[in-house]
Amino acid sequence: MIGHEIHHKTLSNGLTVLVETMPAVRSAAFTLLIPAGSAFDPAGQNGTASALADWITRGTGSMSSRELLSAFDRLGIQAHESASLNHLVISGACLSENLPAALRLYGEVIRHPLFNEDDFEAVMAGVEQSLLVIEDEPRQKVMFELVRRCFPSPWGKPAEGTLEDLEQITPDAVRQQFRRCVRPQGAILGIAGNVTLEELAPILDEAFGDWSGANEIVLKTGARGVYRDHLSHESTQTHIGVSYPAVPYGADDYYQAWAAVNVLSGGMSSRLFTEVREKRALCYSVYASLNSIKSEGQVLCYAGTTSERAQETLDVLLRELVRLGEGIEEEELARCKARAKSSLIMAQESTGGRAGSLARNWFYLGRIVTMEEVRAKIEALTTQTVLDYVKAHPAQDFTVLTIGPEPLVS
Amino acid sequence: MIGHEIHHKTLSNGLTVLVETMPAVRSAAFTLLIPAGSAFDPAGQNGTASALADWITRGTGSMSSRELLSAFDRLGIQAHESASLNHLVISGACLSENLPAALRLYGEVIRHPLFNEDDFEAVMAGVEQSLLVIEDEPRQKVMFELVRRCFPSPWGKPAEGTLEDLEQITPDAVRQQFRRCVRPQGAILGIAGNVTLEELAPILDEAFGDWSGANEIVLKTGARGVYRDHLSHESTQTHIGVSYPAVPYGADDYYQAWAAVNVLSGGMSSRLFTEVREKRALCYSVYASLNSIKSEGQVLCYAGTTSERAQETLDVLLRELVRLGEGIEEEELARCKARAKSSLIMAQESTGGRAGSLARNWFYLGRIVTMEEVRAKIEALTTQTVLDYVKAHPAQDFTVLTIGPEPLVS
Repeated sequence: MIGHEIHHKTLSNGLTVLVETMPAVRSAAFTLLIPAGSAFDPAGQNGTASALADWITRGTGSMSSRELLSAFDRLGIQAHESASLNHLVISGACLSENLPAALRLYGEVIRHPLFNEDDFEAVMAGVEQSLLVIEDEPRQKVMFELVRRCFPSPWGKPAEGTLEDLEQITPDAVRQQFRRCVRPQGAILGIAGNVTLEELAPILDEAFGDWSGANEIVLKTGARGVYRDHLSHESTQTHIGVSYPAVPYGADDYYQAWAAVNVLSGGMSSRLFTEVREKRALCYSVYASLNSIKSEGQVLCYAGTTSERAQETLDVLLRELVRLGEGIEEEELARCKARAKSSLIMAQESTGGRAGSLARNWFYLGRIVTMEEVRAKIEALTTQTVLDYVKAHPAQDFTVLTIGPEPLVS
Repeated sequence: MIGHEIHHKTLSNGLTVLVETMPAVRSAAFTLLIPAGSAFDPAGQNGTASALADWITRGTGSMSSRELLSAFDRLGIQAHESASLNHLVISGACLSENLPAALRLYGEVIRHPLFNEDDFEAVMAGVEQSLLVIEDEPRQKVMFELVRRCFPSPWGKPAEGTLEDLEQITPDAVRQQFRRCVRPQGAILGIAGNVTLEELAPILDEAFGDWSGANEIVLKTGARGVYRDHLSHESTQTHIGVSYPAVPYGADDYYQAWAAVNVLSGGMSSRLFTEVREKRALCYSVYASLNSIKSEGQVLCYAGTTSERAQETLDVLLRELVRLGEGIEEEELARCKARAKSSLIMAQESTGGRAGSLARNWFYLGRIVTMEEVRAKIEALTTQTVLDYVKAHPAQDFTVLTIGPEPLVS
């Protein structure tokens, strides 16, 4: 599985296509990123992108919603549509021989959506109910609300929308979002599997060649939310979300930032797991992850615990985050590299994983990132360069959000 | 990826080893099933298996808990230990060149666990907190509680345990569960990846050859729980769990049962999704799945909805389940087969998926099940044989459990 060839083509309408040929598999996967995510939701109508992701697959000019779903199923496509912060994300996997037919169907979906108003109530009910599930599950809700506070507008806008905005979303608002945002310029189609760009080229032209749309929208960065907040919730559990600044995806020291978070929370022997969970029996789940976007980054941390242990858990968590600046052991970095090597090779074996990575890397970096490049960058990390990063970007300026019976002190 | 060779060996102590050689990958995965799941929990101590799954990896005779976790991470193992109904499940994935070292480590874990009492509080806190999370998440809790009611004892015992039993679990009870249940006779090790049984044979002997243990325990089937129940929960949402009888895993018409459930809930165009979600906008999530064990089976259905729509959702759900007996269209079964074909081939590309399937099939059927056999059985299905199955096992004798502000009528 080494040395998969990756080829790139930009269609005349601006759509970027990336194809990684994996000769050893029989399936193929694709991820289409269209710059129509929740960041583009109109003010007061957060949830529009999420509604669009659902409505857009409910039929095309030539097929009813049910006919379209049946067509997907006949091709054995495992499909998924959703809104992320930046994108309307359409992804799927199927046998490689069915990929051309799948791409033709999705060409219809994005160029000629039916947008039948009879389906709109069901679409909005779905968006609302997804949000109500988050309301009911504080483990999810704490991270959802943390992101809303720690990123500046519009980069903290939840992909799922917000309950208070949903009532303002009309069919016309969603159609307008489609016309404003769904266009080939800036869209990226990543494909990985037993296919080649050469054989797919005529199908891509047929499915997406005459796709056209509006100009690119430039979003302005606004204010961020509060640094401390507590949402009262009657339960025996307290859910803690903590974040602090990191670097954007394309930063020179992005891999150092990645390693720093990985020392904290990358594996079974990483610090948060051993300190907070193993040694002190404080909480049932704890993790940190690097959440970098184009313009900035935040480390997002979560800890779930019983309410009587919540204050101590938060104290230990913050202390561990700060303590990273005191030094990193060679052995910690070695384990981090071993885990990464293993994960990278396993990722090579997943068509869905590769299709998504190809597309996301192109979005963030504007180029193909090979697994070999990632491997070399990780191999080149030293404890000194990681520590230099941590000293330049220390754990401070924390955003702390809690959900539980009582607020905590931080 | 067609025609992976699968080889089988039984060690002299009774451990069954199954190896599927996948020459196109660089990773290897394993699943070790030890007959020490929650079904074996002593009466009044449900949660013992779950505690054992955590405690057993906290150090061995020669390694502290932290040394062991570091050793796993140095090998880049993505590991997971848990209790299921029947088994203590130890699984992992890593580069194929690291599999021998990984197996040696797990040989230590299961033969010489440290069982340090200093860790016991952390172990039990972890088990308790996992349960408290389920308490907080009604979407999970409804299915957890449904299984407790619809299967006879001990087959409905939750792998996670129950809060009321946890306080009765002592270190000695867990050690005794280990001595009673953790043994090679009846244990199954499935391995899939770029490895062969031939090259692994000496390592298997070294790691597991002198593993010994108690005799097999035969569990007696007892009474089942109530057919109707409601758990009151203040929320705008109601969570509905419904089950009805199906067939055991090894039944002659198991694939017919699988197809029947798949017509209901296998893909985007399946009945529950289109009827309940798409057409009526009733609920945000609905599914049915076939849950077969050795001695019997149940179809488990879930629907989540707003409380004002809950009664209508339950009514529509039950009507759809019953309506399956009125007929199945050729086109429905064709889509079901297309989805299955696609899924089967994609499953062939996952080492973790294959390792788990090998081991589980051996547990349920006592033999190797090739993907080709599954494909042929699915290909041979006809609407008539599926309908015959549905008529022989109609949707009736429902168990209905709801969580929400108000009980429903059923």
